Amino acid sequence: MSKLLIVGSVAFDAIETPFGKTDKILGGAAPYIALSASQFDIESAIISIIGDDFPEEYLEMLRSRNVDTSAIERVEGGKTFFWRGKYHNDMNSRDTLETQLNVLGDFNPIVPDAYKNVDIVMLGNLHPLVQLGVLEQMTTKPKLAVLDTMNFWMDNALEDLKKVIAHVDVITINDEEARQLSGEYSLVKAARVIEDMGPAYIVIKKGEHGAFLFHKGQVFFAPALPLEEVFDPTGAGDTFAGGFTGYLAKTEDLSFENMKKAIIHASNLASFSVEKFGTERMQHLEKEEVQKRLYQFKELTQFEIELS
Amino acid sequence: MSKLLIVGSVAFDAIETPFGKTDKILGGAAPYIALSASQFDIESAIISIIGDDFPEEYLEMLRSRNVDTSAIERVEGGKTFFWRGKYHNDMNSRDTLETQLNVLGDFNPIVPDAYKNVDIVMLGNLHPLVQLGVLEQMTTKPKLAVLDTMNFWMDNALEDLKKVIAHVDVITINDEEARQLSGEYSLVKAARVIEDMGPAYIVIKKGEHGAFLFHKGQVFFAPALPLEEVFDPTGAGDTFAGGFTGYLAKTEDLSFENMKKAIIHASNLASFSVEKFGTERMQHLEKEEVQKRLYQFKELTQFEIELS
Repeated sequence: MSKLLIVGSVAFDAIETPFGKTDKILGGAAPYIALSASQFDIESAIISIIGDDFPEEYLEMLRSRNVDTSAIERVEGGKTFFWRGKYHNDMNSRDTLETQLNVLGDFNPIVPDAYKNVDIVMLGNLHPLVQLGVLEQMTTKPKLAVLDTMNFWMDNALEDLKKVIAHVDVITINDEEARQLSGEYSLVKAARVIEDMGPAYIVIKKGEHGAFLFHKGQVFFAPALPLEEVFDPTGAGDTFAGGFTGYLAKTEDLSFENMKKAIIHASNLASFSVEKFGTERMQHLEKEEVQKRLYQFKELTQFEIELS
Repeated sequence: MSKLLIVGSVAFDAIETPFGKTDKILGGAAPYIALSASQFDIESAIISIIGDDFPEEYLEMLRSRNVDTSAIERVEGGKTFFWRGKYHNDMNSRDTLETQLNVLGDFNPIVPDAYKNVDIVMLGNLHPLVQLGVLEQMTTKPKLAVLDTMNFWMDNALEDLKKVIAHVDVITINDEEARQLSGEYSLVKAARVIEDMGPAYIVIKKGEHGAFLFHKGQVFFAPALPLEEVFDPTGAGDTFAGGFTGYLAKTEDLSFENMKKAIIHASNLASFSVEKFGTERMQHLEKEEVQKRLYQFKELTQFEIELS
């Protein structure tokens, strides 16, 4: 079993969907990633930054899941990153109503000594130079560095983004971002262009339409489980990333065949995340539920066809 | 092996895509369905109507594939149905530039005696009362009646559409149409509502995002094969329907397990159809290519996960 090092925002979110709205609740990429990865009973650590308004109980909840929170810097007199957003009726698009960067604006990540030689690093969505800064502090090159990013950095820090992309093994982005980054509409072509930028594995997420894993001309696809209702899509991509890296940390097998399994586990966990507001569903997720839904994934996708 | 009875338009299409444009070429639901189904070496017949402007060579091409064309009524002095359309850059939406209904406006389908007791009927997209009229002429209730339709009939002939829906076993529609017909946004809920209207099997097509098969609380999903380029999406849905019914006619097994295979074959054949203009790719498709791509479908979707 490998340790998993997670870099990402820790935040307050205020979310409005057609089903209701929340006050400030636990948000940010890192808690979603860590909660999802914790389903595999691994050890992980979060590198992040918070203000003194951040409740200790959230950190305790994470620690109770074997998440080392000692590298989450608490800034006295500072305020935690805050995002407020509203989803449209189709749940596929949202408006950002408010963003307060707060302490995240001066985030200078410091990798704890105990995590400078971990095998797997998950770089959650942040400024590319922050992501790169983490990689540069590693004393041993990780066996697997996974990068999540978004169109905001393509618009505002493309050269920095390309630098960090050149240093990672896996990139996870959504279909529109893959098109923007590559300049290709076809996802097959887009993946090839992005592979040439550095990463050997390209994960293209299509939300409710599933996710592709591209690698050297091979391709694997996992659908999203069709749900009665999507309640709150916030954090689905981070939950996916946490499931993907958590499973790989647990199994220590970085073959393409095992990455297929990781993608299925990732999709499975993401399907739970969207069923309640924020991290609520992931905080109370039972192993039996996860297993049951994995069985549904098999039923959904597996078939027998004789090839001549 | 069962015979397959196909009802659908036979048409001229003029198509413009970002890759080029065509003059009047062979189009209409029935030729796409029949060409696709012919991959399974079955006997089929088309019920349709054409004008005296329709080239005999198209009919000969169909007959050379074991498609009985004797019930394609040729109207002397009449003109064949004509559609002109233009696809947008993303290939997911198109504008209809011209529609000449011509002889299709007075189409009164007559089922030949030799086909009044076939096991499988494929009702291609047409006025619901035409589709119903075909079912009413059957002397023996088919084992499987499959209905394709579109939003136009939901807007303009909903009550007639509901009548024919109540009489079929399978309905194939796209995701937006499923939402419109059911009034439900969630496809899981939409399928349940439509199942209550009559069909035991609901196929929801999502174009490049694949297709679902719903049946009594069970669900199966086939992705679309990720392609380098989609050249012309015209007829992909009809090719899918032809592959689905052709495989079932060939195997004579109407179980849910076998329908899963039929959905995979359908998706596989549709992936070829979009690679050239009109029916061109399907007219020259070799069995070896089909087998090779089926293997790609397995690679794309199959995984091994141990369930505890």
